[in-house]
Amino acid sequence: MNINRPTLLLNKEQVIPNIRKMAAKATRHDLFFRPHFKTHQSRMIGEWFREEGVTGITVSSVAMAEYFQEAGWQDITIAFPCNIREYEKIDQLAGKCDLKILVVNTEAVQFLKEKLKNRLFFLIEIDNGYHRTGLDTEDQVGIDKILAVIGKCDLIKFKGFLTHAGNSYHAHDLEEIKNIHRNTLDQLHNLKAKYKGAFPDMIISLGDTPCCSLLDDFDGVDEIRPGNFVFYDLMQEQIGSCRMEEIAVALACPVVAKNENRLEIAVYGGAIHLSKEYILDKAGSKQYGRIVQLNDNGWSAPVPKASVISLSQEHGIIKTEKEFFDQILVGDVIGILPVHSCLTADAIGEYLTLEGEKIDHY
Amino acid sequence: MNINRPTLLLNKEQVIPNIRKMAAKATRHDLFFRPHFKTHQSRMIGEWFREEGVTGITVSSVAMAEYFQEAGWQDITIAFPCNIREYEKIDQLAGKCDLKILVVNTEAVQFLKEKLKNRLFFLIEIDNGYHRTGLDTEDQVGIDKILAVIGKCDLIKFKGFLTHAGNSYHAHDLEEIKNIHRNTLDQLHNLKAKYKGAFPDMIISLGDTPCCSLLDDFDGVDEIRPGNFVFYDLMQEQIGSCRMEEIAVALACPVVAKNENRLEIAVYGGAIHLSKEYILDKAGSKQYGRIVQLNDNGWSAPVPKASVISLSQEHGIIKTEKEFFDQILVGDVIGILPVHSCLTADAIGEYLTLEGEKIDHY
Repeated sequence: MNINRPTLLLNKEQVIPNIRKMAAKATRHDLFFRPHFKTHQSRMIGEWFREEGVTGITVSSVAMAEYFQEAGWQDITIAFPCNIREYEKIDQLAGKCDLKILVVNTEAVQFLKEKLKNRLFFLIEIDNGYHRTGLDTEDQVGIDKILAVIGKCDLIKFKGFLTHAGNSYHAHDLEEIKNIHRNTLDQLHNLKAKYKGAFPDMIISLGDTPCCSLLDDFDGVDEIRPGNFVFYDLMQEQIGSCRMEEIAVALACPVVAKNENRLEIAVYGGAIHLSKEYILDKAGSKQYGRIVQLNDNGWSAPVPKASVISLSQEHGIIKTEKEFFDQILVGDVIGILPVHSCLTADAIGEYLTLEGEKIDHY
Repeated sequence: MNINRPTLLLNKEQVIPNIRKMAAKATRHDLFFRPHFKTHQSRMIGEWFREEGVTGITVSSVAMAEYFQEAGWQDITIAFPCNIREYEKIDQLAGKCDLKILVVNTEAVQFLKEKLKNRLFFLIEIDNGYHRTGLDTEDQVGIDKILAVIGKCDLIKFKGFLTHAGNSYHAHDLEEIKNIHRNTLDQLHNLKAKYKGAFPDMIISLGDTPCCSLLDDFDGVDEIRPGNFVFYDLMQEQIGSCRMEEIAVALACPVVAKNENRLEIAVYGGAIHLSKEYILDKAGSKQYGRIVQLNDNGWSAPVPKASVISLSQEHGIIKTEKEFFDQILVGDVIGILPVHSCLTADAIGEYLTLEGEKIDHY
């Protein structure tokens, strides 16, 4: 491949198994599989999900919902607190597909109730302890207020409870992830017990890549919405959600400079390509990516002791050891496994498969 | 203004004075003003520079050089180590404008010498102690090797030495910036003294927003290349390069949720909009942005004790105090001053002036 600029390589031979594995897990546990498409944001990759039987999807913005609705998706959940300033687009979308939105306050439902012309479902977001958005599990008053505003409105229907256990991303080991998950399940069970009588069709939806990748207890859950698993990344590998070889994207970057004294390699590929997301290595140093060597089958395992230690707008600086340093020449192209594949994919806005095919990104 | 999604507001009434002030400083010190366009990456904003007499520009990629050459710029320096994999585009550009590139090794000049068909100038990058790329000032052997490869080649001509004192970004006060700058000037003086005889037309080019904003000693310098000053940002304000009111861009974000217990406001506006660049406040906590209230004249001074404390892909979480918390309603739009305006502008890819005009971004 003739790569001259930072290019996000996509290994389809790894993406498909990543999709199949999660789809099979959902089937095994009798869960509706509603993958989050915010990671890839690609119509083409969406088609690969469709081929594995996926019919419903999750997105994180109204614009992303439009992008996929136009590509033929008919069952879409926008898993982001309802932005009432976009109600016109939400209304239009609701007229074109089976749309579900996320509600975290009475303001949104009150506003929609007054404005909406098309039928819409909503889920109430529950904060499992991640403390980003959503109502506390114990906040039955808050939940009941939202349901009371909607009342018997024919257009807006309560669909169930949704949670994102984002705190699993900060877990240090499997035991901690299990505890977070167990706790989340307990909270959701209590909610289901309280509201199932009044809303027999209600669902419990959860989704985060660590829990969905690692655990096998989905008791009481109706659907899962993981997203990152399609590509995985270094953060997920550090958490333990995936093995290094399951990471399905790598940023290919031309080598532009070498510094022998510091054993550093400078590449064309910086913060606007990788994003400034980092993980800490065992010594507590920031890592913005791990280095792989590109080959005919994609890329190698990560080079030991070679990582991206700093990023400016277009520069990436790789620190390594003499043996690898000496192998790399100015003008070579090397690969960087991203820390957070969702952000890298969003920054690059396009993929190139190992077969040389360009793949769209919203 | 009807803002429904994360939108980068641009206050032209502040951008123009920022440009004029730096242009006047260059004139006062008899410096060629070659502003770095990587911050704004906009043809329209480029025209505002042209109206202030700017004729030569700096960019950070071949693609950006093409973008501005097509907009009529004829004197362009690509201040990024020469990426030989793009030599064909470099050659084409060299045929269309007065192009200067950056060289940090013999590999690049050897390669170009063999391939190039059009006339090109190059600057040798000097590492002033920032330790990103470039040759050490003392590395006369390295410099001479590069010049020897070029020899008397008619097409490729040595233009001078360039440095980026990026270490000024890590300075804690004016004294430290002054020391970095003094040290940089001393190094460049020595180089000029050594090479001026053989290359009487050679120049010394330096450029970083902190030094160019704060200092008045440019003895021996021929041109300056600051970029960030056009917008400034919280990082520059923390360094001391600008006052808060000189920051000329703010990300407008719809409010989607409030949490009264935590006094947190959630906005539509996350890592893919602001970038994950952060500064540390006095208590050592990460700040991804400061909050301003939008008004008819643009925006207010930053709200005391209100800042973005975390970002996920599309969510921004603002921590504040009760008084401000109570003023903000779901559905409002609030402004966020970015930590690093170059990255925010690149992430959004478009500007909206306070007059409602859309401004391009590469």
